[in-house]
Amino acid sequence: MFSLTPVLVAVVCILIVWIYKSADGSVERRTGELKARSEPRPWVDEDLKDSTDLHQVEEDADEGQEPEENIEHVPFSHTQYPEKEMVKRSQEFYELLNKRRSVRFISNEQVPVEVINNVIKTAGTAPSGAHTEPWTFVVVRDPDMKHKIREIIEEEEEINYMKRMGQRWVTDLKKLRTSWIKEYLDMAPVLILIFKQVHGFAANGKRKVHYYNEISVSIACGILLAALQNAGLVTVTTTPLNCGPRLRVLLSRPSNEKLLMLLPVGYPSKEATVPDLKRKPLDEIMVTV
Amino acid sequence: MFSLTPVLVAVVCILIVWIYKSADGSVERRTGELKARSEPRPWVDEDLKDSTDLHQVEEDADEGQEPEENIEHVPFSHTQYPEKEMVKRSQEFYELLNKRRSVRFISNEQVPVEVINNVIKTAGTAPSGAHTEPWTFVVVRDPDMKHKIREIIEEEEEINYMKRMGQRWVTDLKKLRTSWIKEYLDMAPVLILIFKQVHGFAANGKRKVHYYNEISVSIACGILLAALQNAGLVTVTTTPLNCGPRLRVLLSRPSNEKLLMLLPVGYPSKEATVPDLKRKPLDEIMVTV
Repeated sequence: MFSLTPVLVAVVCILIVWIYKSADGSVERRTGELKARSEPRPWVDEDLKDSTDLHQVEEDADEGQEPEENIEHVPFSHTQYPEKEMVKRSQEFYELLNKRRSVRFISNEQVPVEVINNVIKTAGTAPSGAHTEPWTFVVVRDPDMKHKIREIIEEEEEINYMKRMGQRWVTDLKKLRTSWIKEYLDMAPVLILIFKQVHGFAANGKRKVHYYNEISVSIACGILLAALQNAGLVTVTTTPLNCGPRLRVLLSRPSNEKLLMLLPVGYPSKEATVPDLKRKPLDEIMVTV
Repeated sequence: MFSLTPVLVAVVCILIVWIYKSADGSVERRTGELKARSEPRPWVDEDLKDSTDLHQVEEDADEGQEPEENIEHVPFSHTQYPEKEMVKRSQEFYELLNKRRSVRFISNEQVPVEVINNVIKTAGTAPSGAHTEPWTFVVVRDPDMKHKIREIIEEEEEINYMKRMGQRWVTDLKKLRTSWIKEYLDMAPVLILIFKQVHGFAANGKRKVHYYNEISVSIACGILLAALQNAGLVTVTTTPLNCGPRLRVLLSRPSNEKLLMLLPVGYPSKEATVPDLKRKPLDEIMVTV
């Protein structure tokens, strides 16, 4: 029989408590890991999140910011239409934009350079946080570059789809397969890649915070979609999953720019179809107080 | 003198290891707390971040999602303009939108209900992730409600400004003071509060993920700004800091809706001025490849 010597007791107790407390910690850590592991969402573009970038630049920013209060104010000139004309204009604009659809079948017919310049100038009239204008529109017409973009996107999309399928949609491979083949990236005469500048640079070289840069650039995209529709061009709003960094490097954009959206632009092909979707009626989207 | 009995040794050892391991844990916890504490940025609206909301709903979502592949496709009909007309239309639309400015001086003249309905219908034509249409436009015309909104915003804005001043701008109190007084919230005949639905509900009552809801609603806002400008109305794009939850409750909106933007809408007052800002030229916002 073993006698309980003080030393043996000490060793046993230390071991017991050590193991108990360590197990405790590892449970906590495992909970943490589980939380961390549940965070990545393969089907949501990580590039679209910019809050982390802002955290990094927060400290040395602001100094480059020029408060709008210091800028001279000038009288605002405005065109006011008679009430009847306002109603007519707003009705016609609604009817024009209501015809807009996301079109994935785009012909290879070229579009006039001047029209693309005009629609991008129009997007550039969007408001932005502290008038930072945090957008870069990359217009790709070069067939080789379009094809390289397509290769990157299809590669990443295939992975996205396979991951999603692994989780849920194991049923219909062929149906999904058509979704990661993006022929329009070769066919469309123009690809517009919209980058948000998550920060800028002040005259002294310091980083300048771009407040609300994602919202500002998305607003500019809304105006761009309206301008394209007004010009008789079609597009589809795409947010290529996880392709941002590779496309940024391919297009030689600086690291303060992150891809927000990619719009293939052109005329619809003759056999273009769209899903038979309806829009919510006014009373489902508007509340009056 | 105390003799080292096995029991005493056991108790002492248990205590020592317990305290040691607990201290370890509390250091870890404290590091975590510090990290958490450094995150809040008082001048960035917490309501504008929705990633956390999405994390929560991720697991039980998707089942309510109807993949677009299952919806019938119909032929797409399109109006194509001759090249000359495209150039003219795109140029005129640019000139119209380039006159848009953020106007903070709004007269109390009423605007036609039909025009507001049309501009909101137009905003509702925006594309959205998986066609979720995750927006609610709250149109406030009631003077009492407008005043309550003003009170909430001015209260919060005063705190925002004081905090920011405490950190950096201790110099010019009077100049800043004018910034948190928002007279236009009483004066403008219409306030449009735009809420993003961070998730929806499927027919079976389960939560339905609204992918890219913030980007989608921001695009809708861009189209709304274009529609307002086209109708001859003015506004200013505001993102009231930290007011989201209070305004949501005031307007009885459900908890899946978060305030994204507030637009006071009307005609400019006679003495309206705007800061003398210039927009970047095309070659600073566009790159052609």
